[in-house]
Amino acid sequence: SRSLRLAVIPGDGIGQEVVAQGLKVLAAALPQDVKLETRNYDLGARRWHATGETLPDADLESLKDHDAILLGAIGDPSVPSGVLERGLLLKLRFAFDHYVNLRPSKLFPNTATPLAGRPDIDFVVVREGTEGPYVGNGGSLRTGTPAEVATEVSLNTAYGVERVVRDAYERANARPRKKLTLVHKNNVLVHAGHLWKNIFDQVGQEYPEVTTDYLHVDAATIFFVTQPERFDVIVTDNLFGDILTDLAAAVTGGIGLAASGNINPSGAFPSMFEPVHGSAPDIAGTGKADPTATVLSVALLLSHLGYAEEAARIEAAVAQDLAERDAATPRTTDETGDALAARVAG
Amino acid sequence: SRSLRLAVIPGDGIGQEVVAQGLKVLAAALPQDVKLETRNYDLGARRWHATGETLPDADLESLKDHDAILLGAIGDPSVPSGVLERGLLLKLRFAFDHYVNLRPSKLFPNTATPLAGRPDIDFVVVREGTEGPYVGNGGSLRTGTPAEVATEVSLNTAYGVERVVRDAYERANARPRKKLTLVHKNNVLVHAGHLWKNIFDQVGQEYPEVTTDYLHVDAATIFFVTQPERFDVIVTDNLFGDILTDLAAAVTGGIGLAASGNINPSGAFPSMFEPVHGSAPDIAGTGKADPTATVLSVALLLSHLGYAEEAARIEAAVAQDLAERDAATPRTTDETGDALAARVAG
Ligand SMILES: CC(C)[C@H](C(=O)O)[C@@H](O)C(=O)O
Ligand SMILES: CC(C)[C@H](C(=O)O)[C@@H](O)C(=O)O
Repeated sequence: SRSLRLAVIPGDGIGQEVVAQGLKVLAAALPQDVKLETRNYDLGARRWHATGETLPDADLESLKDHDAILLGAIGDPSVPSGVLERGLLLKLRFAFDHYVNLRPSKLFPNTATPLAGRPDIDFVVVREGTEGPYVGNGGSLRTGTPAEVATEVSLNTAYGVERVVRDAYERANARPRKKLTLVHKNNVLVHAGHLWKNIFDQVGQEYPEVTTDYLHVDAATIFFVTQPERFDVIVTDNLFGDILTDLAAAVTGGIGLAASGNINPSGAFPSMFEPVHGSAPDIAGTGKADPTATVLSVALLLSHLGYAEEAARIEAAVAQDLAERDAATPRTTDETGDALAARVAG
Repeated sequence: SRSLRLAVIPGDGIGQEVVAQGLKVLAAALPQDVKLETRNYDLGARRWHATGETLPDADLESLKDHDAILLGAIGDPSVPSGVLERGLLLKLRFAFDHYVNLRPSKLFPNTATPLAGRPDIDFVVVREGTEGPYVGNGGSLRTGTPAEVATEVSLNTAYGVERVVRDAYERANARPRKKLTLVHKNNVLVHAGHLWKNIFDQVGQEYPEVTTDYLHVDAATIFFVTQPERFDVIVTDNLFGDILTDLAAAVTGGIGLAASGNINPSGAFPSMFEPVHGSAPDIAGTGKADPTATVLSVALLLSHLGYAEEAARIEAAVAQDLAERDAATPRTTDETGDALAARVAG
């Protein structure tokens, strides 16, 4: 019989609540013969306050011994900004070489969008996950004085760019529209930009059926709100991808629906799946958090592990649930989880 | 009698056409006793193709000898990306220490917005203009090979951040709502981010009446489309400001209306005013370009030079023109310029 060994990092704020629903739906979706083993990791603000640890080596080692990781949300106002993000979330992405940060954006029927006219939105952002300005290569001199200088270095390698660009071409090639847009800012960040653009053009020669396009990041934000239907697959740098995917979530019904996968396509390390939203400490414990983004992240997880049919069932359940949701009678986090699990099971 | 010595850089694409309208409206707005002297600078793609020059020292020197600069747009597909941006536009911003890149965003009545429900939008972005990832401090090693590494360094100084943050507090303090939001990404770009945040908090102590707020850049993009009315004044880094102001333009009726000033508040060098839009080579020469952003940039120019009343007259003319515009019968660039000049004159 098969097994799925899942590491679970609920994290902070609403992380606990939404992850519980994700697991509920996962259990409902998995084939009977698959034995689900989960192991919980107490990582995040509580642990840091208690022990000063963000991600000890022992935890990192034992996390490796799993098929995938499900993460809720990391971050709390009681912890200085950057401590958990760099010490835990980004440490995981870098240690497990999650170079494909996959973020699909789809405007489901019957969901609210701030955009007039409800454009047809269905694209995927392939955000680079292990390079760029996220490498933590910065510093400051004469810190806290009027003579302070602070730097942040964006590191980009042909090795790192080529593999994520290739992944994006593969994804574009597998979709009906076969369109890939590179987003960067190569008129200002000329060195990094030219590296990206050259590799994008080179790899493109191997994918003659994929139509390509280049946009500066500033111009891309315009199209996200005026013509989001023009996008199919987007490939971009770590920081631009961070910004664009929050904007994408906003125009497709909000951050409550945006799923993501931090993927290591080689399988050398477990991939990690998480909602794009944060820990939302203001609504933690109120039962108001929408677990849908986590449930859709579970679908990405299943699809990554080869359970394509089960993933599709979860996506269909979410689409139906959204279509039939009655916005006038809001449900609790738990009720939404139950409703989704029932649809998946059923 | 007074004089206004204006350097004009029409630039590329639609730059020529929109600048002509800006000058028309400027002439109509200026008090009778002000002698307007303009000098044209042939800079941009044509010059680069003809001579290989982007901004020779002699031009830079003679530009200094003006009260202000009006710029149309820079950039053409025939020129490699970055050559004119870095060699001309950014060179001017850096050489003339334009540390306040001022970009107001206002949703005028009767203008199209992609946002449903037409929120009340009226904010100003104070974008830092001389530091950050724009400093041109990057490079590449083993360029063009599979072993290439490319870097971009974001440079941030207490000196540079403090002066722009102070300018933003002054602007916020002078507005009825007195609200200032810092946008950065201090949970990832911790060194630059902490420098910005510390200075933002310190300077804030001198402005007890200003309400402050901090947002990560990714979260800020969400509010730009879901709650843009929450913003009053925003202060941010050069790159984040670039991205956010294009998005702001998109939600407030499009890049055809977005004005900007590259301001050196000390007056040591001339400030430069330009529409946020690019050279739009696809519509150059067709008479389709909307000169309104350039006309509004002329208003910023006048306001900067102390002609507050004249600036207000231009803004009122634009507001009226937009309110009474008949979208069904589009006008040419020239016709819009004439209409605005007529309203201003009379
Ligand atoms: C929390 C933060 C470090 C993270 C990022 O910037 O990548 C988040 O915004 C995201 O998009 O997953
Ligand atoms: C053309 C480009 C260099 C410029 C910038 O990035 O600043 C433009 O996008 C702007 O916003 O003025």
